[in-house]
Amino acid sequence: MSRVLAAELSTRDGETVRLAGWVHRRRLLKSVAFLILRDATGLAQVVVTDPDARALLETLGEETVVAVTGQAKANDVAPGGVEVVDPTITPLTEPAEQPPFDLYRPELAAALPTLLDHAPVALRHPRLRAAHEIAAAAVAGFRSTLDGKRFVEVHTPKIVASATESGANVFAIDYFGRSAYLAQSPQFYKQMMVGVFERVYEVGPVFRAEPHDTARHLAQYTSLDAELGFIEDHYDVMRVLRDVVAGMVDAVVRRAGPAVELLAVDVPEVPAEIPSVHFADAMAMVGGPADEPDLAPAHERWLGDWARREHGSDFVFVTGYPMVKRPFYTHPEPGRPGYSNSFDLIFRGLELVTGGQRLHRFSDYVAALGGADLSQYSGYLDTFRHGMPPHGGFAIGLERFVARLTGAANVREVTLFPRDLNRLTP
Amino acid sequence: MSRVLAAELSTRDGETVRLAGWVHRRRLLKSVAFLILRDATGLAQVVVTDPDARALLETLGEETVVAVTGQAKANDVAPGGVEVVDPTITPLTEPAEQPPFDLYRPELAAALPTLLDHAPVALRHPRLRAAHEIAAAAVAGFRSTLDGKRFVEVHTPKIVASATESGANVFAIDYFGRSAYLAQSPQFYKQMMVGVFERVYEVGPVFRAEPHDTARHLAQYTSLDAELGFIEDHYDVMRVLRDVVAGMVDAVVRRAGPAVELLAVDVPEVPAEIPSVHFADAMAMVGGPADEPDLAPAHERWLGDWARREHGSDFVFVTGYPMVKRPFYTHPEPGRPGYSNSFDLIFRGLELVTGGQRLHRFSDYVAALGGADLSQYSGYLDTFRHGMPPHGGFAIGLERFVARLTGAANVREVTLFPRDLNRLTP
Repeated sequence: MSRVLAAELSTRDGETVRLAGWVHRRRLLKSVAFLILRDATGLAQVVVTDPDARALLETLGEETVVAVTGQAKANDVAPGGVEVVDPTITPLTEPAEQPPFDLYRPELAAALPTLLDHAPVALRHPRLRAAHEIAAAAVAGFRSTLDGKRFVEVHTPKIVASATESGANVFAIDYFGRSAYLAQSPQFYKQMMVGVFERVYEVGPVFRAEPHDTARHLAQYTSLDAELGFIEDHYDVMRVLRDVVAGMVDAVVRRAGPAVELLAVDVPEVPAEIPSVHFADAMAMVGGPADEPDLAPAHERWLGDWARREHGSDFVFVTGYPMVKRPFYTHPEPGRPGYSNSFDLIFRGLELVTGGQRLHRFSDYVAALGGADLSQYSGYLDTFRHGMPPHGGFAIGLERFVARLTGAANVREVTLFPRDLNRLTP
Repeated sequence: MSRVLAAELSTRDGETVRLAGWVHRRRLLKSVAFLILRDATGLAQVVVTDPDARALLETLGEETVVAVTGQAKANDVAPGGVEVVDPTITPLTEPAEQPPFDLYRPELAAALPTLLDHAPVALRHPRLRAAHEIAAAAVAGFRSTLDGKRFVEVHTPKIVASATESGANVFAIDYFGRSAYLAQSPQFYKQMMVGVFERVYEVGPVFRAEPHDTARHLAQYTSLDAELGFIEDHYDVMRVLRDVVAGMVDAVVRRAGPAVELLAVDVPEVPAEIPSVHFADAMAMVGGPADEPDLAPAHERWLGDWARREHGSDFVFVTGYPMVKRPFYTHPEPGRPGYSNSFDLIFRGLELVTGGQRLHRFSDYVAALGGADLSQYSGYLDTFRHGMPPHGGFAIGLERFVARLTGAANVREVTLFPRDLNRLTP
């Protein structure tokens, strides 16, 4: 008999059904026992009255995997309105050892470090699982939006010869006896691939040897990177990013509806045009000193409130960040020395995405790299030596996006098996 | 004026158009000059008669990026039947330096090491680019097939605490002063996530410190991994794999049609049921010794020919490989000691995919790991300690799949920026 999922049970009233899943909870009352079965789609209630079946159930602790065959029967108070009666219970494994927390409670009553130590089991809790359903949906939305705009997906090297992109916070590898490093981003490669495909994206891991143990830093995270050629300036990139964020939010709602509901996600509306303010104006608005090169977290919160108040938007672009705070490949703002064709996207007062226009002329790269050893950049520089269009792009941190959306205080709450200064397992 | 792509030009006869792209080739004849412009969608012919425009064109070497505004005009001998006349040519960059090979020739006349050394530019060649269009389409087909079967996408750690999966050929990392390793596969994590989502997949990099410099080994490749719970045995996994391969081939044809045509890919048909032969029978058929634990490449070729001859299939499953050649988490074949519930999928005589049913009982893992230090496996083992269903999965090497499909002799021909024993750049 083929398996019926918990979510399908409501349509099977009167049929003989076979369920399979985990023992989520047992309630052993005097005259009757209830087995709440959990599968990937939800919960199902099984009513046990037969003494032999009850005796078996008593030996099967929570998290034991079982198959249940029985009669589906309407019952208004059962989850989904249908329960299973007269069951035959068949264990599919040995009885499970009990987890260090009760997975059947609506909220997991354990501190974050405990949950992370026991992530393979803690992630089975519907609330923890939900964040990753949202993440999967968001990535699907990222890709489908870009697929619809002629972008091509690429997979680039994560092992690189030199720590050229930023020079700091890289992990060193022993590469067949030579030194190599883990890539901090696919930045150089996605630019190279603009020369091949014009428009590319990559979803993949990036690695930062972050010596800070904060609520937002990870040693590995999933970066959603896009880069496109033949742009006028960074505003073309911002228009694509607007559609990507809208596509991600839309996919989350469409593909992860139950998770959105369970976590009571306050789904943002993405305006057709996201309001935008220049860095210099933003700094004046928040009352910061004119020579300050970056926005403080309090400034970003103020701008988030301002965007909501003045434009009814959860999102606001800040453009034109000072060149001194941007990487060497950033395109300067024409006619405005010191500023750049770059942007941050602020979501509810927190920076979510960074991007901008890049340099595209070989001679500009040589100038920007100043006295650096150019041989370290040879493959990258060859790209520009042999002709590159004006281009730009952006990167979205997946875990940060999901944390913002779900209101998680710590990015680790929504990261599968996080890696940080102190954590390398499980 | 918004940009018209080369592939769209055929529909613009009589209009003023703006193209943008790379100078693919110039043909400077006595009375007229032709500029062949290349963009991501193809080639367009621009006819230059004005002396000033010609003088400019003479200074713009191949690969220079230009915009061209002019009149679209039907001409049967132009690519797509429409060319551009009376052009105004505007360089978007400095004149490009000439690449070390002619990108405009139908085949690149350079040896593989030269192409790999200059990959950022060599990949612009339509034939090299085509392999990566096929790769992107194949991955999209992998995902959409599994999305349609309730699989959830995950992104798992690439930095791990111990080299537990195989113990050999791992890259060591300096992780904040501690030893860590690059993950050789997401095997342990995808199994753990079966406990959470029942069905998961991951597309991501895997790392092998392969000391062999062969045509098929890479230090990093893209692994397409899937794992599913609540199976009867490995045949359930094989049925999912059959649909996945069919979905990948279908997506390649639908999404990368021009690339398939350019490379004259011999597109395989994936039969509704792929023929299957047990390892012991296969060994007898090829005339190998009964105690030989693995198939030699010549055996796989023979089986590929046999499947084509007897079943009209480019694909054949070999099942039941001896336990001694399979990893410790492999499920044995019930009632047939020494054999396993595993399989390889052979495509045109070459192994393409490996998979099988895994152990799911905690006590079986403890037995399989024998005297090993179990603390090294603690997160993984916790998964089974707390209840796991019968499950299995498979992994497809993306680059190997594309190499087989396009008939590439060396997997590096279809790998973006390959990494191997001797190659760490570009």
